[in-house]
This record gives sequence, C-alpha cells and structure tokens, in this order.
Amino acid sequence: MALPRVVIIGAGFGGLKAAEKLSKMPVEVLLIDRNNYHTFQPLLYQIATAGLDPEEVAHSVRGVFQGQHNVDFRMGTVEGLSWERQTLWMADGSLISFDYLIIAAGASNNFFGIEGVEENAFPLKSVEEAVRMRSHVISQFEAADADPSLVAEGVLNFVVVGGGATGVEMAGALHELFHLVLAHDYRNVDVSQARVILVEAADGLLTAFSSKSQRYALEVLRERGVEVMLDTKVARADTRAVYLADGREIPTKTLIWAAGIRANPLADALGVAQTRGGRIVVNRDLSLPDHRNVFAIGDIAASLDEQGEPLPQVAQVAIQGASHVARQIERQMRGQPMRDFRYRDLGMMATIGRHAAVTELPTKLRFTGFLAWLAWLFLHLMYLVGFRNRLNVFINWMWNYFTYDRSARLILGDGRVDPLREQAEATMPAASVDVAGVPQR
Amino acid sequence: MALPRVVIIGAGFGGLKAAEKLSKMPVEVLLIDRNNYHTFQPLLYQIATAGLDPEEVAHSVRGVFQGQHNVDFRMGTVEGLSWERQTLWMADGSLISFDYLIIAAGASNNFFGIEGVEENAFPLKSVEEAVRMRSHVISQFEAADADPSLVAEGVLNFVVVGGGATGVEMAGALHELFHLVLAHDYRNVDVSQARVILVEAADGLLTAFSSKSQRYALEVLRERGVEVMLDTKVARADTRAVYLADGREIPTKTLIWAAGIRANPLADALGVAQTRGGRIVVNRDLSLPDHRNVFAIGDIAASLDEQGEPLPQVAQVAIQGASHVARQIERQMRGQPMRDFRYRDLGMMATIGRHAAVTELPTKLRFTGFLAWLAWLFLHLMYLVGFRNRLNVFINWMWNYFTYDRSARLILGDGRVDPLREQAEATMPAASVDVAGVPQR
Repeated sequence: MALPRVVIIGAGFGGLKAAEKLSKMPVEVLLIDRNNYHTFQPLLYQIATAGLDPEEVAHSVRGVFQGQHNVDFRMGTVEGLSWERQTLWMADGSLISFDYLIIAAGASNNFFGIEGVEENAFPLKSVEEAVRMRSHVISQFEAADADPSLVAEGVLNFVVVGGGATGVEMAGALHELFHLVLAHDYRNVDVSQARVILVEAADGLLTAFSSKSQRYALEVLRERGVEVMLDTKVARADTRAVYLADGREIPTKTLIWAAGIRANPLADALGVAQTRGGRIVVNRDLSLPDHRNVFAIGDIAASLDEQGEPLPQVAQVAIQGASHVARQIERQMRGQPMRDFRYRDLGMMATIGRHAAVTELPTKLRFTGFLAWLAWLFLHLMYLVGFRNRLNVFINWMWNYFTYDRSARLILGDGRVDPLREQAEATMPAASVDVAGVPQR
Repeated sequence: MALPRVVIIGAGFGGLKAAEKLSKMPVEVLLIDRNNYHTFQPLLYQIATAGLDPEEVAHSVRGVFQGQHNVDFRMGTVEGLSWERQTLWMADGSLISFDYLIIAAGASNNFFGIEGVEENAFPLKSVEEAVRMRSHVISQFEAADADPSLVAEGVLNFVVVGGGATGVEMAGALHELFHLVLAHDYRNVDVSQARVILVEAADGLLTAFSSKSQRYALEVLRERGVEVMLDTKVARADTRAVYLADGREIPTKTLIWAAGIRANPLADALGVAQTRGGRIVVNRDLSLPDHRNVFAIGDIAASLDEQGEPLPQVAQVAIQGASHVARQIERQMRGQPMRDFRYRDLGMMATIGRHAAVTELPTKLRFTGFLAWLAWLFLHLMYLVGFRNRLNVFINWMWNYFTYDRSARLILGDGRVDPLREQAEATMPAASVDVAGVPQR
C-alpha cells in the first residue's frame, strides 16, 4: 500500500520546514517550486548592494534533501487545482495528485496600482531581481563617471519606498556601499553627491517595532546621511523621476520598491476565500475551510493570532506554521483530532547598517546598536541553509567589515542599463570624424 | 605639462598586467572594457559546471586599481579609431584620445560558419555565457525528472566540440557533475544515462601537448565514461541534434562550443593588417606597422615566436606581452630604441578531472595525475585576482572535493529552458479536467 503523498507548494522558509518535518513521517513528500533553489530572502538586499553573491543566499532544494529518500522535488509552476480530483495543474501541462496539500507559495510585490511603479520600480523578492538591481545601481555610477552632467538628471539619486525592515536595510546598505566602497572607485564622480532617499507613508520607520526602536532607526539613518521622508506617499513614477503626493518630484533612474507585499497570485487562482492582501483564509488549525487535508502557511495565509488578527508576514510565522501543519497531518493519519496553531513570538530584528540594528525580544527586552547588530548577523547566519553557504557568508562579512571592500560589484547581463547609450542614440549628430573602418552613423 | 596618456582596450590578462606595470610610470592610464570586471577565463567552465560562482571568477576592475591614482577605468565598447586624431570612438558616442594605445581586446568564439552552430551552441567565453550554460545544463535534468521520455530525445546528451584544454576540462567537469553530484539529486532520472560526448576533428586531444599527455587525457576521459570521438567533424546543428560529417547524428539539446577562437571583431574594425584568425599583424616589438605608439598583445595579436610562427593564444603570452609593451612605452618616453619581444615558454597545463591533469614544463619535464592536478589548482589559485576571491575559491574547492557537493547548482533567469513547457504548448489538448479558477486552454 502506497504511503500518503503530501505535496508542498513553495520551497521558502515554510515549505522547507514542512518538508523537513514530514521527511521523518511515513509519507511521501513532493516539494514544488518554480525555481530549483530556496531563496534566503532576508539577505537579498545584500546581493543588491554587492555584499554577498547569489549562490550564498540561495540553495539548491535537491541539495537540501539529498539524504531524505521520501522527499522529492519538482521544478515547476502551479497554475490551478482540481478539488474534485485532488490534483494540481502545472504550467507544463502535467498533473500532480495529492493526499495532503500544503500551500506555502509566499508573497509577491504589491505596487498598490500606483501609476508607473510596476514598470519602473526595482523590486527585491528574488535572486534575479536582486542581481538586476545590483547591476543597475553600479551602472549608474559608471554612467556618471563617463558623463558627470547626468548627475543633475538624477542618475545618482536612489529612491527606496517603504520604511519597514526591508526598506530600512536597503537604504542603509546602499548608503554604505556608496560612501564606504564606491567612493574609492570613481575618480570623476563626487560620490558624496549620491543621494539615498527613503520614502515612508506613515509617520515613522519600522512601525512594527517599539517607538524607541523607531526613533533609533530614524536617527541613525539621518546621521549617516540617508534622507528620510516620513508622511510621504508616492503618486506616480516614470523613467525620469518619482512624483510624490505633495507635488514634489525626485529625478531618479532608480526606484526601489519595498513598500508592500500581497499573497502570491496562486491564491487568486484557487477559488478559495481570501482576506486582505489576497491572503488565504484558514481555520485555527491552518487547514482550509471545507478542506481538512489542505493547509496554507506563511505569507500566503491569513493565520491569526490570539486576538484574531492576521499574523505578520515574517519568516517565523511560516516556520512555526510549517511545523504545526506537519504535526496535524500526522494526527490526521492517526485518526486524532487536529489542534489549533499557537504562534510563539520570538521577537524581531532589523539592521540599519554597520554596528547598528534593533532587536526586540518577547520579554520586552530591547536593545539597539552594536550588540543588536551582532545578534542580527549571528541569527541570520544560523538560519542560512547549508554549511558551505554559512561559511562563505561569514567569510564575506568578515572581509567586507575589515576591508570595506565589496568585491561582488559586477554588472551582469540584464541589469546593464546604459543611460549614455540611450542618450547618444537619441541625439547622435552626423559624424564628421575620420574613423577607420566604421560605418558612419 | 600633462602626463602622456596610455589607453588600454581590454581588461583581460594582458590589459590588467599592462595597467599594473604602467601604474608605476609617469603616465596616465585609462583601461577600457565592455564589462566592469575582469574575467578569469580558465575557470569559466567551473561556473558552468556549478563548482564556482561568478563572483569568484570575476573581479571588479576598479577594485583592482583602487590604490593606483594614475589608473582610471571606463566601462564601454570601442567601435573604431581615428589614426589622424589619435582618438577612439566609443559605442556611446564619446571620443577618447590617446598618446599610446595598447589593444588587448582578446578573442571571441569561432564557429567556422558551420550551419546552425552560432544559433544553437553554448559558448564559454564570458561569465554570462557560463551562467546561462549552467542554468541550461541543470534544467535538462529537471526536465528529464519530470518527464523521463525526454531522455530518448537526447535531453541528457551533452555534446562538447573541441578537444583542446577547454573542451577536455569541460567534458571532464560535466561528467563529474553528473555522476558525483547530480546522481544523488534525482530520483526519477537514471543519471547513468546522461552522456558526455567530446568531439574532436584531429586524431588526438590536447594536440598542443606531448603525445604522452595526449594519450593520458584520452585514457582518463574514456575510463571515466566520457565518449570521445576523434577524427570527427561537425557538419551542422539544429535545436534537435548535432549532425556529424560522417553522417551520424547525436540527438541533444546541449551543444557546447570549445572548438576555436578568433580575434575580437574590433580587430576587423580598425583597418589594420590581419593574419589568420583575424589576429593583428605586429612588429617584433609588438607595435603596429606604421604606428610606433600603438601596440597589440594577447589573443588579438599575432605575436611571433623565434621561428616566426604566431604564438599560441594563451594567458602567458598576453601577460608577458603586456610587461614587454609597458617597458617599450617607457623606452619611447626616454627616447630609447624599442626592443623585440621574447616569449619565455613557462610550460602548460590542462586538467581532466579529479586527481587528473597534465603538466608540461619547459625543461621537458612532464608529469600527469595527482601531482599535476595539485599543481594546476595551485597555479590557478595564485593567478586569480583578489585575495578574497582566492580564499573563496579555495574554500569551495575544498568543500566540493570532500563532500562531492556543488552547491552552486542554481537555475537563473535567461538560462531557464523548459523543454516540457515548449512541448506542452505545442501539443496541448482541450482541457477536460474541472480546474478551479483557471481559464481553459
């Protein structure tokens, strides 16, 4: 008799933890993801700011489960589901049947329908987006170095929208990249002219944190030279600038969007009840209403806290939800009733830059500064998947710290934006120079 | 009075060495490259076979010369040159004047005009090409895992054309990737069905080496399971297969081209004398005929040995040529006559796989096997640019060696080839399954 088959959609924090727990149970696990690797999202901004390499922040899923004989992986995209047949419909046309299903497909960018943002912004939710952003950012400096007049057009203005942990980390890291590293690379560019502008609609940064932490983050960023605009909304964007609701405009070629997420669009395709942000409505035990064998965890789910409010879309919620669901599947197989999910808040952290972070632990223990920063580094190192990745990241962090060097400042492929070339092609005069062998333009 | 300006086209082995030597002289150096990084080409095949990451094999040029105040860098593509005005014409429309010019733009792929090769082959001369190849190779296994019938269509056949050092290294590394690493990753694929086929037109591999080394390479590859086809030419290629001159065909989705190089097309645009392979004709002192202040070095130049034969297109020729040219520029500035370039053959090496390499030193000292392999590793480690890169590469090599793990097996962006999807889109029947919320195809 075949073992029950548990299919998990998504190899993020939630999906990996669920597969890990289920691998010890008498089930067959099939993990599906559109990429063949797990992405350690909290460190994506470090790829974008040339501190770490993609291969340190991502890990092949098959590599994680090599030793687990009951865990299989399929690279593909889920497009739909047949409740009647308990089957998933894949983009490549194949069908995957399940006995139990865990939906852990995560979140995607929310541009709030603001005009011009989706086309012009650089989001940061995947390795490819991070590499593209890195290439773009460094390209702006190359362009300014070749033609300093571009600075007045905003080529060295970098606008980050969103004052949560992601935006704060991004703004801090960009500023450090420019003033600690790139400042030594460019002779024709006055790197002190590079501006990092952090835009936030609320009246504070890190609004999920205590007011002490909020003030700390604001102070540190401003002290270090990041321009923070609170109570500020983006009205629209285009290829030349970002336009704020109050009428001001910031000329820029780089709009980084860290302002909001919504559930992965898969949630819309399933025909299930959804709540704010598209998150899937789930029972207290994380199963779907009317489908006891189907669960949703992490960012895509609207799992609730004790007060009945949706839990934050953070890694710990996904990880704990995954462990819970694995246990509920076991209970179902044993004919036992399921239990409610109880989230244990282990605290939160955000880093602002060198020596500066905020950490809040559940016993109202808060600390900021150097110690918090070390704690942040340590925690992320421990949560990284794969010993080799941990070792490489550790070495790179040590190297970057002591030498102020960020060697990964490569401009690759897609990200190569050549403002000079675009400009040249638009305004090329008839050539009059005697050029050997080149067709005249 | 302004210092003389030396412009160097190309930041490869030759360009970097020239800039390094010239940085100690009373000149201004401007180094130009279309990428903002130097590529360590001998290790590109290791990116392609998931052993190393791009950021370990490439180094930001500005990073290399951070401390040198008379060395500047411009990221851009040279399209032509005005002899009369001693000026370069850049792709972005700008002009760069020079007092001395060193052309070190290297080589590019030579597909010999064979039908279908340029469109279908995966070349290996840049970081981006290597990443694309890596993604493609691993995608074939993902496709076969999802649909084992594809194996009969050749999705696990990998054809490498060219039996020089590059092709041999590539074939050996691919085979190891499959049988030592991927074999543990895939449950539905019999990885032993994956074939690596090395095609060479001559009657031996590594024809630049001694016959002892040639025999060794052939034996080791065949012993390990690589199929070597000597005396075999490629007639044409398409998306389904490679077609050999003798009428045989090999169904495959992966054709890797390591069969020949020619001078960078820039050589054609300059209107100068060229010889076989498009290489620029140079005087014995490496200056161009009729242009004492313009030099060509490395793969793009036809620098000659004592017998008047063009030197091989290898790193040492570029590096030594660069040192020589820097000295000749100094001599010119001092009003001294120039000297001829004398190449010192320091020997050559090629690696075949784990524990197996060939090394030939000038005193006819030859050795193969484990010792040669260690020597190869050591030499490449020392020539890598940047201490951090050396440390990272060293760690990855140690890791890969002891754990048989190659963690960098990520499929990214462009390289994602989805044979299943193409197949599905071609043959999709009308859907009859009750799928919730998905538009019927």
